Amino acid sequence: MSGYTYAEVERILVAGDLRGRLTRHDLPTPALLLDLDAFEANVAAMARHCRAHGLALRPHGKTHKCPEIANALIRAGAVGACAAKVSEAEVFAAHGVTGILVTTPVVGRDKIERAVELARQHGDTLFLADHPANVRALDVAAAAAGVVLNVVIDLHVGRKGGVLPGEPALELARLVASLQHLNPAGLQAYAGFASHTVGYDQRRIASAEALGPAVETKRLLDRDGIACPLLTGGSTGTYDIDTAIGSVTELQPGSFIFMDLDYRGIGGRDGGAFRDFRAALTVLTTVVSKPTSALAIIDAGTKAFSTDRPLVPEAIGVKGVTYAWGGDEHGKLDVRRASAAVELGDRLEFVVPHCDPTVNLYDRIYCLRGDVVEAAWPIAARGKSQ
Amino acid sequence: MSGYTYAEVERILVAGDLRGRLTRHDLPTPALLLDLDAFEANVAAMARHCRAHGLALRPHGKTHKCPEIANALIRAGAVGACAAKVSEAEVFAAHGVTGILVTTPVVGRDKIERAVELARQHGDTLFLADHPANVRALDVAAAAAGVVLNVVIDLHVGRKGGVLPGEPALELARLVASLQHLNPAGLQAYAGFASHTVGYDQRRIASAEALGPAVETKRLLDRDGIACPLLTGGSTGTYDIDTAIGSVTELQPGSFIFMDLDYRGIGGRDGGAFRDFRAALTVLTTVVSKPTSALAIIDAGTKAFSTDRPLVPEAIGVKGVTYAWGGDEHGKLDVRRASAAVELGDRLEFVVPHCDPTVNLYDRIYCLRGDVVEAAWPIAARGKSQ
Repeated sequence: MSGYTYAEVERILVAGDLRGRLTRHDLPTPALLLDLDAFEANVAAMARHCRAHGLALRPHGKTHKCPEIANALIRAGAVGACAAKVSEAEVFAAHGVTGILVTTPVVGRDKIERAVELARQHGDTLFLADHPANVRALDVAAAAAGVVLNVVIDLHVGRKGGVLPGEPALELARLVASLQHLNPAGLQAYAGFASHTVGYDQRRIASAEALGPAVETKRLLDRDGIACPLLTGGSTGTYDIDTAIGSVTELQPGSFIFMDLDYRGIGGRDGGAFRDFRAALTVLTTVVSKPTSALAIIDAGTKAFSTDRPLVPEAIGVKGVTYAWGGDEHGKLDVRRASAAVELGDRLEFVVPHCDPTVNLYDRIYCLRGDVVEAAWPIAARGKSQ
Repeated sequence: MSGYTYAEVERILVAGDLRGRLTRHDLPTPALLLDLDAFEANVAAMARHCRAHGLALRPHGKTHKCPEIANALIRAGAVGACAAKVSEAEVFAAHGVTGILVTTPVVGRDKIERAVELARQHGDTLFLADHPANVRALDVAAAAAGVVLNVVIDLHVGRKGGVLPGEPALELARLVASLQHLNPAGLQAYAGFASHTVGYDQRRIASAEALGPAVETKRLLDRDGIACPLLTGGSTGTYDIDTAIGSVTELQPGSFIFMDLDYRGIGGRDGGAFRDFRAALTVLTTVVSKPTSALAIIDAGTKAFSTDRPLVPEAIGVKGVTYAWGGDEHGKLDVRRASAAVELGDRLEFVVPHCDPTVNLYDRIYCLRGDVVEAAWPIAARGKSQ
């Protein structure tokens, strides 16, 4: 520990004047940590992969909700950032992120008003749509504001939203092309379920089946003379699969920057774990109670780790420690087989089950080079689900 | 809808100048809603219950993380508020909440520094401890700052933290009593598992078994001449059970103010659902895609509802709608048996599976009287898990 008081640590972090003065031991737990070496390696690997295959990279910002990370990805070659919702896009745009694609349809008068304002300030923003009534509403609002909205048509290939591929999509594209204040920008075909299909070959089959109708729809548009410069989709789980699908023009993966236990479990190309990207995200915790020799209680529960996957946080640095949920505020560690003593006040680090919703629980991500804190980035779009 | 633009709605909300000008239809979704009539009825019922049984009420603030709610409870008769962590307590204290009990041991130099500062500013704050080394560290820090810390000894009755009841607890109490800058304030015996035990009789048995050793420990302290003005514990699930345990002096329930599907399922005294308190908390959502007649996609997924219980959000207002998780950002509704048409742009309201971690996902709770928005309270301690 550096010897700084908590108040001094906070002052240094808020001022951003770190200069190697803080280490992980100074951070208040539970703390969200980013291993910069692993993060940078992941970013470089994905950028290289997309360049090699002639694909644009528009990484999904819902994973990190952090403008510094979105801008770091753009510096590494990304064409922009995806944002899940309008409010997330607003935060990114306010921090200088360009080329934003909003991947939820903009539905409702208030959301359309915000989208139009985004388009007025940042003409390169792209908006998703999948319904004729919504498309008409977008055009009316854009006309009233004197802007043109770039509209990407979302295809129903992923068991969630989207217009049905084929004729329904073609009709919607014709409508977009016919409206004066909309610019037909292309198609989205995102199949989240394929990304999480376990086994490389099974994933390849799932993704090909999901994207087949999208490729066919793109052909329909081409034949109809409707411009379709974009076919965006793909994810961390299919990043090296969707490259084989010729019509795909860009990938929008998210988790590769951080990785998590869920993605590690989908299986790699070689049949082992999926380790194409390094684990860069962890949560640092403190043992706050040691009621028995077998049981240690840490200060990180379901408000510190997301619970949307049937997985528990995994300790690193010490072996033989098993985490169990201990409610909203605490975790229960079975330390009977721990490779080192686990005592009151000890700090333990955990890989997270699922990165996106875990990051969404924190206001700040601490960026480490080894033990040294290089930066503390605000998760400025945290909670921006609107 | 009022006809206000989104920008105008935000200005009215931030200025706090509502005067009945906004209704639920003006709110950006997903939005966390509080039914004020139900909330006030819940608060009144619990306050009445505690008064009738001569118990102090110190409701747990981890449920709401909202200073306005903590202060409303104090106005209704609560002696203070529990806070799960030091950082949560800091937010409450900064907003005028008095009588705070921090229900996680204060472990680590930085946390002790913050606790001492809290005690300096608010002498009535209570801190939990369960370990002799930690107790000594608290005393040293309190001495250095010239303050006295009120220490509540946490008993291991709930399958989580705490010192073992009986002799180990007595020894720790003796240590606290012997140290000059610590004030022995009593015992905590919190058995969270008992609260969620399904079935009233089973819950009664679980709570009695858990609290028995606490009552016995209190007797040991009394016999030893150590003051024990406080035996705090209890929860929403056992609020009318722990009253029968004579030595308990105060209840610290949380969820009763909001209620949720999880608590409804624990079973009431009459063998039916647990309906002693009204459902006051919901999430308002919007249908953002309608890919098929059977499927509607809403803008609320695992970043809008917590997933720590094996339950899904339950629609109100329309029957026959089944929610399924659709990832971080979306929910998938099976609307084949819906009692009314569910179309693009429709707004649907859901009761949440588990209130505490759901509230922790939002920055603001909208307080409604019928359809009128009476207030928008900041969830100022959201994310304060440190």
